Amino acid sequence: MSTSVHTASQKAVITTPGARDIRVERVFNASPERVWRAFTDPSLVAQWWGRGNKLVIERMEVERGGHWRFVEHGPDGIHGFEGRYREVTPPERIVHTFEWDGMPGHVCIETVTFEDLGNGQTKVVNTSLFHTTEERDGMLQFGMEQGLNESHAALDRLLARLV
Amino acid sequence: MSTSVHTASQKAVITTPGARDIRVERVFNASPERVWRAFTDPSLVAQWWGRGNKLVIERMEVERGGHWRFVEHGPDGIHGFEGRYREVTPPERIVHTFEWDGMPGHVCIETVTFEDLGNGQTKVVNTSLFHTTEERDGMLQFGMEQGLNESHAALDRLLARLV
Repeated sequence: MSTSVHTASQKAVITTPGARDIRVERVFNASPERVWRAFTDPSLVAQWWGRGNKLVIERMEVERGGHWRFVEHGPDGIHGFEGRYREVTPPERIVHTFEWDGMPGHVCIETVTFEDLGNGQTKVVNTSLFHTTEERDGMLQFGMEQGLNESHAALDRLLARLV
Repeated sequence: MSTSVHTASQKAVITTPGARDIRVERVFNASPERVWRAFTDPSLVAQWWGRGNKLVIERMEVERGGHWRFVEHGPDGIHGFEGRYREVTPPERIVHTFEWDGMPGHVCIETVTFEDLGNGQTKVVNTSLFHTTEERDGMLQFGMEQGLNESHAALDRLLARLV
């Protein structure tokens, strides 16, 4: 039983509950504490956030008011992302801003929650709030779903080898 | 006539056109080019933005994607502000993000336009768009109007002595 749960492949559920937001729900086969580490330890984030590409963590101060900046080195070029932490409540909730260098000054607020499902599983819900519907729709059209799935697959692999 | 126009004291008009924005309109007795300099030259910004308090310009890269960070040293303490430029179109329009250290991760988008009224006068319109109505209302209640008036009075004095 337990083995079948742990090897089941999960799929992200992407919805748009309001006019300016995107909600992504995904179950991971690891405890909340382990998933929290994968989201907040720079050496672990570097192994999955970039979808398998090289990711340079230039700054990652996981506390209220702290800044983060990641640079992804992919086959299609170098992409910088950055933001600032609004709230860090281990191992339950992180709120931070998110901005891509390609669209500077367009900022969304990401709220990430970690829910213990028992059986060594954790549900991660990521809600992004944009200033406008146009920005939200732009993000959806930028191939966000494929990028997410690649990141999540890399995170699955990392969690499987995390002790 | 011209003298009376130039010595008339101006007043900011603050309105809330929508549920998440604040619009501030103010006329300055200087040409758009002079007002633009006062908004984009760090050594000039330092003389008015902090309402007469010491202002340290830690970073101010006035171009698309550039960052800015100002630290105000006032009688009530030290306050940091920062953001990033989305658009810089001299001498007409600047769009940038705005965030106060005291509420990290709460970001608004400021759009500043400069309109030539002739007679050596410029109308500056600053529209701030927040993610939520609560953030907008919080800004209004934080004594924003008094701070604005102090900054504008300092800017009036600077423009009067700018050649």
